[in-house]
Amino acid sequence: MYLNPVGFDAYDAFFAEMIKENKFSNSEVHVTSLQPTVGQMDNLEYRTYNALIASDLVKATRQASTEGFDALIIGCFYDPYLLDAREISGDMVVVAPCQSSIEIALKLSNRFSVIIGHKKWEHEMHSTIKEYGYGEHLASFRDVGMNVCEFQKDHKITANNLFKAAEKAVTEDFAESVILGCTCEFGFFQEIQEKLKVPVIDPSLAALKQAEQAAMLKNRFGWKPSSKWSCEPPSEKDIKQFGLFSEPYQFGNRIIVN
Amino acid sequence: MYLNPVGFDAYDAFFAEMIKENKFSNSEVHVTSLQPTVGQMDNLEYRTYNALIASDLVKATRQASTEGFDALIIGCFYDPYLLDAREISGDMVVVAPCQSSIEIALKLSNRFSVIIGHKKWEHEMHSTIKEYGYGEHLASFRDVGMNVCEFQKDHKITANNLFKAAEKAVTEDFAESVILGCTCEFGFFQEIQEKLKVPVIDPSLAALKQAEQAAMLKNRFGWKPSSKWSCEPPSEKDIKQFGLFSEPYQFGNRIIVN
Amino acid sequence: MYLNPVGFDAYDAFFAEMIKENKFSNSEVHVTSLQPTVGQMDNLEYRTYNALIASDLVKATRQASTEGFDALIIGCFYDPYLLDAREISGDMVVVAPCQSSIEIALKLSNRFSVIIGHKKWEHEMHSTIKEYGYGEHLASFRDVGMNVCEFQKDHKITANNLFKAAEKAVTEDFAESVILGCTCEFGFFQEIQEKLKVPVIDPSLAALKQAEQAAMLKNRFGWKPSSKWSCEPPSEKDIKQFGLFSEPYQFGNRIIVN
Amino acid sequence: MYLNPVGFDAYDAFFAEMIKENKFSNSEVHVTSLQPTVGQMDNLEYRTYNALIASDLVKATRQASTEGFDALIIGCFYDPYLLDAREISGDMVVVAPCQSSIEIALKLSNRFSVIIGHKKWEHEMHSTIKEYGYGEHLASFRDVGMNVCEFQKDHKITANNLFKAAEKAVTEDFAESVILGCTCEFGFFQEIQEKLKVPVIDPSLAALKQAEQAAMLKNRFGWKPSSKWSCEPPSEKDIKQFGLFSEPYQFGNRIIVN
Amino acid sequence: MYLNPVGFDAYDAFFAEMIKENKFSNSEVHVTSLQPTVGQMDNLEYRTYNALIASDLVKATRQASTEGFDALIIGCFYDPYLLDAREISGDMVVVAPCQSSIEIALKLSNRFSVIIGHKKWEHEMHSTIKEYGYGEHLASFRDVGMNVCEFQKDHKITANNLFKAAEKAVTEDFAESVILGCTCEFGFFQEIQEKLKVPVIDPSLAALKQAEQAAMLKNRFGWKPSSKWSCEPPSEKDIKQFGLFSEPYQFGNRIIVN
Amino acid sequence: MYLNPVGFDAYDAFFAEMIKENKFSNSEVHVTSLQPTVGQMDNLEYRTYNALIASDLVKATRQASTEGFDALIIGCFYDPYLLDAREISGDMVVVAPCQSSIEIALKLSNRFSVIIGHKKWEHEMHSTIKEYGYGEHLASFRDVGMNVCEFQKDHKITANNLFKAAEKAVTEDFAESVILGCTCEFGFFQEIQEKLKVPVIDPSLAALKQAEQAAMLKNRFGWKPSSKWSCEPPSEKDIKQFGLFSEPYQFGNRIIVN
Repeated sequence: MYLNPVGFDAYDAFFAEMIKENKFSNSEVHVTSLQPTVGQMDNLEYRTYNALIASDLVKATRQASTEGFDALIIGCFYDPYLLDAREISGDMVVVAPCQSSIEIALKLSNRFSVIIGHKKWEHEMHSTIKEYGYGEHLASFRDVGMNVCEFQKDHKITANNLFKAAEKAVTEDFAESVILGCTCEFGFFQEIQEKLKVPVIDPSLAALKQAEQAAMLKNRFGWKPSSKWSCEPPSEKDIKQFGLFSEPYQFGNRIIVN
Repeated sequence: MYLNPVGFDAYDAFFAEMIKENKFSNSEVHVTSLQPTVGQMDNLEYRTYNALIASDLVKATRQASTEGFDALIIGCFYDPYLLDAREISGDMVVVAPCQSSIEIALKLSNRFSVIIGHKKWEHEMHSTIKEYGYGEHLASFRDVGMNVCEFQKDHKITANNLFKAAEKAVTEDFAESVILGCTCEFGFFQEIQEKLKVPVIDPSLAALKQAEQAAMLKNRFGWKPSSKWSCEPPSEKDIKQFGLFSEPYQFGNRIIVN
Repeated sequence: MYLNPVGFDAYDAFFAEMIKENKFSNSEVHVTSLQPTVGQMDNLEYRTYNALIASDLVKATRQASTEGFDALIIGCFYDPYLLDAREISGDMVVVAPCQSSIEIALKLSNRFSVIIGHKKWEHEMHSTIKEYGYGEHLASFRDVGMNVCEFQKDHKITANNLFKAAEKAVTEDFAESVILGCTCEFGFFQEIQEKLKVPVIDPSLAALKQAEQAAMLKNRFGWKPSSKWSCEPPSEKDIKQFGLFSEPYQFGNRIIVN
Repeated sequence: MYLNPVGFDAYDAFFAEMIKENKFSNSEVHVTSLQPTVGQMDNLEYRTYNALIASDLVKATRQASTEGFDALIIGCFYDPYLLDAREISGDMVVVAPCQSSIEIALKLSNRFSVIIGHKKWEHEMHSTIKEYGYGEHLASFRDVGMNVCEFQKDHKITANNLFKAAEKAVTEDFAESVILGCTCEFGFFQEIQEKLKVPVIDPSLAALKQAEQAAMLKNRFGWKPSSKWSCEPPSEKDIKQFGLFSEPYQFGNRIIVN
Repeated sequence: MYLNPVGFDAYDAFFAEMIKENKFSNSEVHVTSLQPTVGQMDNLEYRTYNALIASDLVKATRQASTEGFDALIIGCFYDPYLLDAREISGDMVVVAPCQSSIEIALKLSNRFSVIIGHKKWEHEMHSTIKEYGYGEHLASFRDVGMNVCEFQKDHKITANNLFKAAEKAVTEDFAESVILGCTCEFGFFQEIQEKLKVPVIDPSLAALKQAEQAAMLKNRFGWKPSSKWSCEPPSEKDIKQFGLFSEPYQFGNRIIVN
Repeated sequence: MYLNPVGFDAYDAFFAEMIKENKFSNSEVHVTSLQPTVGQMDNLEYRTYNALIASDLVKATRQASTEGFDALIIGCFYDPYLLDAREISGDMVVVAPCQSSIEIALKLSNRFSVIIGHKKWEHEMHSTIKEYGYGEHLASFRDVGMNVCEFQKDHKITANNLFKAAEKAVTEDFAESVILGCTCEFGFFQEIQEKLKVPVIDPSLAALKQAEQAAMLKNRFGWKPSSKWSCEPPSEKDIKQFGLFSEPYQFGNRIIVN
């Protein structure tokens, strides 16, 4: 499942199309988003927005696990609530774009930069990247002064802004690869990559392929989520007693990509 | 405002009593909790539970700010969503027990230990403490094998368990001060402190007094929350457009301590 | 006690006035400085000067403790010999401006800058801040090219220099709050704060209020300095045998603020 | 290509068999090793042995790249000369077991342990893991007191030793997943995994699947190695002038797995 | 000059003898200590004692520089006030036992342990070692439960205690070399070294030889102390104005070793 | 022995001359290089080149040890394979220019910069410096845009380039000392040092003198390399069995400096 962790489904069709073109032929992917009751914001640029979707995200994760998905993608580059979702995901693997993209970038280079919309995003993403352990490999953040909802408005402007920021990352910050730091920056990586001659990672594609890989590893080798120590989930008894997850979570519209 | 960030208000009266005894005479403190719709768990021992209350916590923070509180205490030692709450708190200062306790402990000693209920808690708390910057001053976590809801059941058992863990922290991990790592470990610090002859910090009291201090500093010197860079909140225009905070948050029962 | 750790008492009256305006009504504060025999320097800009006052500072700390003060403020932003003074302070809490200011700044923001007089100061202060654990939260040092003794000479020039440095810290180094990195930068925080719209912390006020808080916590909850492990002081027997502190330390002139 | 970076080919057949069972149907994998002239050691337990194979490893990498392989696996858990091989690998991606295994383990857990043969191995592996950035996620190394060549001698003894070490890692070091820290520990992960109920990662399988993934990502999205800054390879002009790679590298026997 | 930074000269003769046996034939070394007015303690085990000698140490450093010494050894393993002394030392190089010993140990091994008298010493020494940058190479501190003044009382007991601690450091903490963490642990390194078969560094000898080396490098290559940025000393004008160093510092008795 | 770790001996005579002028009168130094079969590159600017000489370097180290040298200098600022060489060096101490230079720089200053040829060099050298523990003391790398082979071509150009880079390091990066980051930058330190008034360390001289010092310490105090834990070398039995070091390594031409 590819879950846009917002209560706004306008992008779902785009992601579905991209997934259709790029998924393994034997994968079935459901693209969906949260209920609009979390708020109608089309982005998670603020910690406030992140917190507002946390409860639904965890419920959605539980639901996806119950439905038997092998893997869940949390479709936002903040990797929101990744560890929380993993705690409650049962045997379903949970992946997210930031972690997925960095793993790919660091197989191809020693230092990467992340192209973000606004300086505002940097602090939270930087904390996340440091917690993963990749802080020493981060060349820089570069922002383009655009909101999430603007990336897909005028493709020429976006392409130009992203390219210029990526170029500065390479020439001034000595980045050796570039990660597009928002799932809504989709559709641009190839052009920038060809011009700059360094790997440019699209985070949604990175997450999709890492999710397929994780699902395959789980099914073949039994490499499923740990439930030990910090990974221990609440007991089913407690879940019942506290009245949690008593009703199935209703996702937004679902697009099923076969 | 002292907010128990759970949808369970059985402890509110205890905290109200403690606050009554220890607050400044000119402070008015409202003790309350979240709506039971977040789930009826009486603890936040799991990341899942934390995520389930995030949305309400942010809404409650906004509400408290709107009502004109000078400071808000998030009454859980995980300091859940502290940075998120600070983003949306306007001119209200937000404090939390873990950060408050450590500040006090490190004025009195160079290394502290934290006494927790279960090993499970350690990973998330450790991340938080490292992000604050206090990782190098942490001697150890010591767990007593008890759930949050057990601390106030049999005081003798709890007192004994906490003392033994604190003693080991001092003698085996070379702690020089001890922090009780759960707001529900209230009522025990003084006895342990007298026996061990090291400072033993009660996190609720620490948070209460740091909140009063922060409120005073704000009113006297204008030291109110920054809204710059990573602290920038969503604009009121966006909040309106996305339909956020359109209705006042209904807290649980409120106990007003004058 | 507010102790200017220099053998030069010209600033004492200013600090006394500031304290008079800002202390709790029930606090009694003695403002004083060291004996002129430590050298007549009016600043501690050099490690050499710091070392020259170390012996007197420790003796003064012991004396203040003997006289029964609840808390001692070491009135210099280098926080000179803070850990040493705490070792010998008995039941008296010792606080200092740098640590006190950062605690306040990080309740209101995620990253702070420090405005110093000369680049020279940075290395030692940076070491101190890293040892406290706050290195990752430090946006930058910005220096104004002024000596300690110049800050109070021409207030217009100082105000202008401090403002320009603070503005650069915010706009170029992405500071979210600003700390004035010298106790002699007093009298300027409010104006800069109003212009810049970020918290600007005055270190003397910060230290004063944190000292009052610490004294209150000690008296109410018994949270007094640890004497365990690295906090262990020399034994009274050894102190006697080695002939230490055999005579009361004679402070400089004392101004008693009621 | 799966390259055993030793001049000893006795294990090649085992790895070929494992690869045959586990590779994608459309992958062609060549299993081979270095020339015996590097020395006849069957392990790389010493830095000395590592250094002895470095030159051949780089030549072999260049040769594999020239032959058009999409990806190369350096089949040793020390990940020997990974960055060096990547520098000269052209468009071929180079992966190695340690990095590959950790990426998988940290999708399934927050802390992992590595089971090694001897304490001796720890220092070099620990340096590598810290350089990758995973030092904070490492619970422990546990050694079983066995040489590389012993792992496949008496399977019962090995299975028992690995299990006991893994169990201690989980129960005493609080590991949430376990990585077998030598490619010659193959054949054991599933049994331990079933007993311990935590993910147990086989490093050769991890490397194989991450190599296939990397090859796929390269072919589909153009995500091939960066040659910028620290990734810049020697120029072809210099290579010619210095007489490097003038003759094709002769691998040991090759087993082609279709 | 070898300076015992205490006001107690009973050990001077021992050090003089050791220096006589081990110095270069063309070195002239003066062994001395501070004035008894700093206090009559025979050790610096407490931060308090350290602070008490700081002023005299800086004055003594200035005096030694004025007298034209090429290098000064601060003869205590805390390396007290090393950076402060270097600031005021002019063209004289200042070295100290802890830094000197570690440099030697890390040429011969990758990890070292330090054998100290009491746990109390660890915190301050650990801070120093981390500030030098050697924290990651430190295997452990091991204490023997002895005061400084006891090391030379009963040589058999001391030898035995040091040996047992060093042995534990090697076998339990995996140290590869051992540093005796007090200049008063002199006379024991060789015996322990022979028994344990790892390098055992005597800190006084280490400091002596590094001082001779530094003096030689200064005279031959002009490698004398920097006075730039953080190394900038107070100006001579200020020194005069503040009345500093106006009289020559009177050392304790001097033993001149030719 | 001073070993140029390349298969190119054109610089040997220069180094021999420099050593002749600067060695102790009672030292005998052999200057040599590797066999040309490692490749005819005159530099180690690429990881590839480093790897190509690794095998010969280890064999050469073993040979030098067998011949009874007290100390070996690996004459390249990358300190290539320093830990590997130390593992197999027996009782011979191995030193290298980067580590040697930093030790000297940090006795004279708190922060140093390294002047390198190309940005390309930085990543590998930075890793090495961080592993030594000196990362926090590094002010910057500054590159002059020159290859190794160009440094000795036009001395005027090189002198000018090195000076300008060193000056920027001091004025813009706040370096307090400067290290020339390539052994082929020899002959320039004194002029730059006189102009800049900060210590400028020549790495070959640093390595030479630290090697002499290490040899002396070994002979006088038995401070020879540890063979414990991570320092353990392969057993002689294994070396024999694996056919290693069965023939003496043939160095390039040797210049013997008496």
